[in-house]
Amino acid sequence: MAELVFDAADPVLATVAWNRLAEPGDVAAARLLGALSPVAALSWLTDPVGGVPCAPEDPRGWDRARARWEPRLIGLDPRRELATIRRFGGRVVLPSDPWWPAALADLAPYVPVCLWVRGDPAVLAAPGLAIVGSRAASSYGVTVAADIAAGVASSGHVVISGGAYGIDAAAHRGALAVGGPTVAVLAGGLDRFYPPGNSDLLRAVGRDGALVAELPPGSSPSRPRFLLRNRLIAALAGATLVVEAAWRSGALNTARQASDLLRPIGAVPGSVSSAVSAGCHRMVREMAATLVTDVAEALELLLPIGAAGESTPPEVAVGSGRPGGSPADLAPREALVWDALPRRAAAQPDSVARVAGLGVPEVRAALGRLELAGHALRDAGGWRRA
Amino acid sequence: MAELVFDAADPVLATVAWNRLAEPGDVAAARLLGALSPVAALSWLTDPVGGVPCAPEDPRGWDRARARWEPRLIGLDPRRELATIRRFGGRVVLPSDPWWPAALADLAPYVPVCLWVRGDPAVLAAPGLAIVGSRAASSYGVTVAADIAAGVASSGHVVISGGAYGIDAAAHRGALAVGGPTVAVLAGGLDRFYPPGNSDLLRAVGRDGALVAELPPGSSPSRPRFLLRNRLIAALAGATLVVEAAWRSGALNTARQASDLLRPIGAVPGSVSSAVSAGCHRMVREMAATLVTDVAEALELLLPIGAAGESTPPEVAVGSGRPGGSPADLAPREALVWDALPRRAAAQPDSVARVAGLGVPEVRAALGRLELAGHALRDAGGWRRA
Repeated sequence: MAELVFDAADPVLATVAWNRLAEPGDVAAARLLGALSPVAALSWLTDPVGGVPCAPEDPRGWDRARARWEPRLIGLDPRRELATIRRFGGRVVLPSDPWWPAALADLAPYVPVCLWVRGDPAVLAAPGLAIVGSRAASSYGVTVAADIAAGVASSGHVVISGGAYGIDAAAHRGALAVGGPTVAVLAGGLDRFYPPGNSDLLRAVGRDGALVAELPPGSSPSRPRFLLRNRLIAALAGATLVVEAAWRSGALNTARQASDLLRPIGAVPGSVSSAVSAGCHRMVREMAATLVTDVAEALELLLPIGAAGESTPPEVAVGSGRPGGSPADLAPREALVWDALPRRAAAQPDSVARVAGLGVPEVRAALGRLELAGHALRDAGGWRRA
Repeated sequence: MAELVFDAADPVLATVAWNRLAEPGDVAAARLLGALSPVAALSWLTDPVGGVPCAPEDPRGWDRARARWEPRLIGLDPRRELATIRRFGGRVVLPSDPWWPAALADLAPYVPVCLWVRGDPAVLAAPGLAIVGSRAASSYGVTVAADIAAGVASSGHVVISGGAYGIDAAAHRGALAVGGPTVAVLAGGLDRFYPPGNSDLLRAVGRDGALVAELPPGSSPSRPRFLLRNRLIAALAGATLVVEAAWRSGALNTARQASDLLRPIGAVPGSVSSAVSAGCHRMVREMAATLVTDVAEALELLLPIGAAGESTPPEVAVGSGRPGGSPADLAPREALVWDALPRRAAAQPDSVARVAGLGVPEVRAALGRLELAGHALRDAGGWRRA
């Protein structure tokens, strides 16, 4: 039996230890930590006598679980993960913390033992709408996702997504563009940005909103972990909106998990010939998803019927009003560029383009307009906000 | 009191007389003809003593109704309308005729007293799907309407529509392109084609399917008559599919009438930024319409669940299979052109283009390919089918 190198009687360390020992979705771990505190559960695991910690798991089930967990006891030191997350300016959030999202109780018995957070943990407890979808999104889907996210964020609701390419990224960008809160739930540890091409965007989300993970720093995102991450998105959000999704897709998995949690689900329609709208149409036909065409209808998913105002024709512009950080009179493209601009350090147009998700020529043009309007400054080092 | 110039004891003449005397939707006429035969009702109307023909209409209601109908007795001669429809190769169909659509009984008390038909009256009694929508359709909507109509007609179901520009015309054309049956229900009399720009198309519908009207020849299409015509489309069809419709539109009116008749309704989704998809999205959100993305889903509206086969991803081509009149191996554009070609008399490309709803250059190119393939012949007078 491994000798523990840390204080196993410390509830934080014991909790993080369990976060390392058992994968999310481990049935035995869920039962164990439902019956015992992390400290007591760890004490049972490290006791050479072992035995049956709680009913009604089959005794051989506990033996198999020990066999799963014990190899990870070797070299286990939760202080390392805590030091790592602190180095990245983040923290671990426990169920006893005030920011712990009460909605996660709906995941029982698979409630996360803790959450890892970079950014403002307070946004976790605020009501949020998940906006998710295809990585291989169309320009239509990207535009709609960004518009709806901007409108949802403008109304003060958190936009929750998975930080992936395509619809997820557009949702985060739309929220950031109006200075609104957004949360990216990652499948791996918060010491790395995945996918790497979204690093700048995820950094911005961590700065203006929050990055969240169930797994500790050092964990790599694998396929089963994406499915477990989807379940976390579904549970954190008051409702889930899918903007584009193929007939079979991860976004549909998130919607199904949300539906299983009795959360409202919505789907944005599109062309019947678009493969990335097929999943959305399937949701409406087979999963009783609500069809959503604009911000007001997206907010209705979160609010009691009628509370978001009358359903309106689509002539009404989405995402108007820009109460966040950016200047009020910016066109959408300039708002994206302005948001991507650093506040203090200067940035080159190509780096601004990566953050904004726009082409370099578009960014140069927008920077010129922002400079003329007095919203951007150029000096020897590059561009920054005025 | 007017002296009648025709044999008012002839049931056909008395029926057509009532068709001229009372507008469709006239409450008193509906009650009168529900209680008395057209001959007896006419006898009451022309009796100077009058009185109350049946309960429970308020006696003053009968006076007001007489005042509405009596002016039309002057010069009334149903033999004229019958001669007109015969001149156009059509006929009147009475509730006692074998082709009378039993489904019209659902319109009670406003059941039409007769129908005017040009073309094959047998298609009236066959199960049909109404495919209707915006006059100001997008090219997306036109393509989807034609594809679904072609698939529905290929499966042997009648495509019913209103003969208008846009979606209606595309639905008729799609059915004609596969040699399938189609019915255009017109708001005015069948002695004229409305809208005039669809004359060639409506002529083709009357040749290969049927033109239907509730009003006698000589009646002009007015706004209230369009609404009454929509009700007739909704009742004739087993289900109604709206392909594109603005937030407020005649197509939504047809769908609402179908819904009131407890007929299934469907709507095709589209871009959330398209004004002509807004009504379809509204139908799904507010009217419990089924979202329809392909032929199989359209047919499911008509058939018991599952009878049209499993719901399939949209990768499966719509409108494949072409069991109708046109050669089996034609591409959609050539099929449209082939269908627009006369069988005997020859036509110039510009006239073919009007019937097919294509541009003249496209038609010339398609004619060349059809000629090469042995499906079209050119001679001094123009083009015709091989």
